Amino acid sequence: MQRQAPWLLPDGVDELLPPRAQQAEELRRRLLDLHRAWGYELIMPPFIEFLDALLTGTGGDLDLQTFKLTDQLSGRMLGVRPDITPQAARVDAHQLRREGVTRLCYLGSVLQARGGGAAQSRNAVQLGAELYGHSGIESDLEVLSLMLETLRSAGVQDLHLDIGHVGIFQALSARAELDSADEAALFDLLQRKAADEISTMLANSGVAAELNGMFCSLASLHGSPEVLELARAKLGGVDEGVDSALDELQQLLGSLATREPGINVCIDLGELRGYRYHTGIAFAAYTPGLSQEVARGGRYDGIGKAFGRPRPATGYSTDLKRLLNLSQSDTGTMAQDYGGVLAPWMEDRALLNRVRELRAQGERVVWQLPGDADRHGCNRRLVERNGKWELEAV
Amino acid sequence: MQRQAPWLLPDGVDELLPPRAQQAEELRRRLLDLHRAWGYELIMPPFIEFLDALLTGTGGDLDLQTFKLTDQLSGRMLGVRPDITPQAARVDAHQLRREGVTRLCYLGSVLQARGGGAAQSRNAVQLGAELYGHSGIESDLEVLSLMLETLRSAGVQDLHLDIGHVGIFQALSARAELDSADEAALFDLLQRKAADEISTMLANSGVAAELNGMFCSLASLHGSPEVLELARAKLGGVDEGVDSALDELQQLLGSLATREPGINVCIDLGELRGYRYHTGIAFAAYTPGLSQEVARGGRYDGIGKAFGRPRPATGYSTDLKRLLNLSQSDTGTMAQDYGGVLAPWMEDRALLNRVRELRAQGERVVWQLPGDADRHGCNRRLVERNGKWELEAV
Repeated sequence: MQRQAPWLLPDGVDELLPPRAQQAEELRRRLLDLHRAWGYELIMPPFIEFLDALLTGTGGDLDLQTFKLTDQLSGRMLGVRPDITPQAARVDAHQLRREGVTRLCYLGSVLQARGGGAAQSRNAVQLGAELYGHSGIESDLEVLSLMLETLRSAGVQDLHLDIGHVGIFQALSARAELDSADEAALFDLLQRKAADEISTMLANSGVAAELNGMFCSLASLHGSPEVLELARAKLGGVDEGVDSALDELQQLLGSLATREPGINVCIDLGELRGYRYHTGIAFAAYTPGLSQEVARGGRYDGIGKAFGRPRPATGYSTDLKRLLNLSQSDTGTMAQDYGGVLAPWMEDRALLNRVRELRAQGERVVWQLPGDADRHGCNRRLVERNGKWELEAV
Repeated sequence: MQRQAPWLLPDGVDELLPPRAQQAEELRRRLLDLHRAWGYELIMPPFIEFLDALLTGTGGDLDLQTFKLTDQLSGRMLGVRPDITPQAARVDAHQLRREGVTRLCYLGSVLQARGGGAAQSRNAVQLGAELYGHSGIESDLEVLSLMLETLRSAGVQDLHLDIGHVGIFQALSARAELDSADEAALFDLLQRKAADEISTMLANSGVAAELNGMFCSLASLHGSPEVLELARAKLGGVDEGVDSALDELQQLLGSLATREPGINVCIDLGELRGYRYHTGIAFAAYTPGLSQEVARGGRYDGIGKAFGRPRPATGYSTDLKRLLNLSQSDTGTMAQDYGGVLAPWMEDRALLNRVRELRAQGERVVWQLPGDADRHGCNRRLVERNGKWELEAV
């Protein structure tokens, strides 16, 4: 077997070196402070958990993306988290057990066993926020606004928002009494917006013409917010679940117009990514030059059930490293100024005190070790004059 | 098989909930800022790597503590890092490839497959600093001072320092021409300070009486810095390596007396923990009420060899969660004041602007969602008076 160079990293696994790691740290702080200012409390769940807990309520997609380990202490299966959302649900439902509204946020490494294609990182740094205990559209709107504020704060320009509602597809599926195989096949066809194939498939499954037509129309109901009028005409008045989903979308768009007047919104009723997870409003933000979404979120009521308490839930998440890459183009805000002070290596109490003082003021002070001639990016040095340690330019 | 409650975490794996997670974040920032002020550049290596790279130069202890995974993309073995030090050595030796002195620091989760006993966490948050490219005792002293400053900044009181030098044992072992099995057996006996057994074992291995006596004396050479005088008398003048190690210890103690006049130091020449890793000065800091060390470090020259470039190296590391537990007793510095402002849920542009303004000033502002009567720890609320949104106490 050919031995590979030991300094190579696995495909899709990357690391942050100077000065990017420091820029990531600054972005991390800015965004966590933003979440704190919105009243979201920080949690730090562990990187591994029992596999059952990690996969609760999330379906098969995450199972295949989860690295599995055997715990030597318990003999049970552990998983390395591919997503922090189920951990946050566990914390809300069982660890905190609060009544009423709870807001949580988190920022940490996740790991995907397979990744999502050539260009995608397998070790994202997931940043996200979750709001539990409120089932109204207002909490979806709060989370959506927080997501937009986060992206803007990270310097992501030119945002485009896709909004859908998983409740419409779910209500129609229930009415059509589809089995889960048919529902999964239909889901795939809708992702491809293949209206003809949908029609044929549903006819073969014995679905009535009216309902069949409604499914087909989902494939074409995407575009500017006016699409909602068309959706009312094609889907309204038949099913309570569909009507209430359309009402929620309407209310959300109205509020967005006030809160985010400049934002570019696209409605897509056939967009169901993550529908095994979501139960209501679902949204994703895009920016030019990035084919994947930059952040996504939505409602996923009931996820806490497996942890002893079903709770309404809505949230969003993004990847800090993806945000860092996007904000790098904006060199103005992320520019790194090293600066700093060189200190000669001496056992002199006055010098030691002066160095401590400068560092306490936020200065970067680097000891010049014997034999080291490097300036280490410093623009000043400490020199002794008349028994005093003073700064001079280098 | 009995099904366990899905909200339990594996033994030795813990998580941080509110408000402790926020306190950990604040401590993280304070300590990373301290390292930056000392000229240490932040790196963020990945949580997994190829197993070879993780175990390079670290010996068997870390192998048993490393969770192993198969990479689905390459078919090769991956490890979850139990220690960030080898990663930092890889970054210095291969990714950065700088000439001269390089200072790096890191803070991140590590995972130990077995842990270190009942009371010890398997998922520590390792904080550490490494200085590459300088082989003098001055760099050991810099790293030791940085470690002490870090512990003090975290509020750890009443520090006690253990200092040894692996070079003495290594020089004597080389002179005695011990094979690796004998060396390992001797190492274990020294850890137990079992002088009689050491003497018998070495006699059976045919080691000369003088050298045998020197090994035995290592077991008793521990105590206040005056022990160094005794060491000179018992070990001096026989081996150049031993003499130079004693010189280094002498110089380190002299500098420490100037730089850290109050510190409580114990010399222990038989203390060799981690000697497969270290090559020179080795130290550990203790504090009352904690049986394990609170931080440890020392010199480990040559670790970068496997990554294409042997480099002098010295560093220290600690566990952020252990520091957090210790600083918790000091409630004054870590007290958490929630405070904050409640905002009624309304689509009102003036209100939206006021909320944005307050958050930008660093205020925590929580939207009061319809139906939510909780105060969310806020001590003020926004109310409208004469068309203006004003703060009033709640």
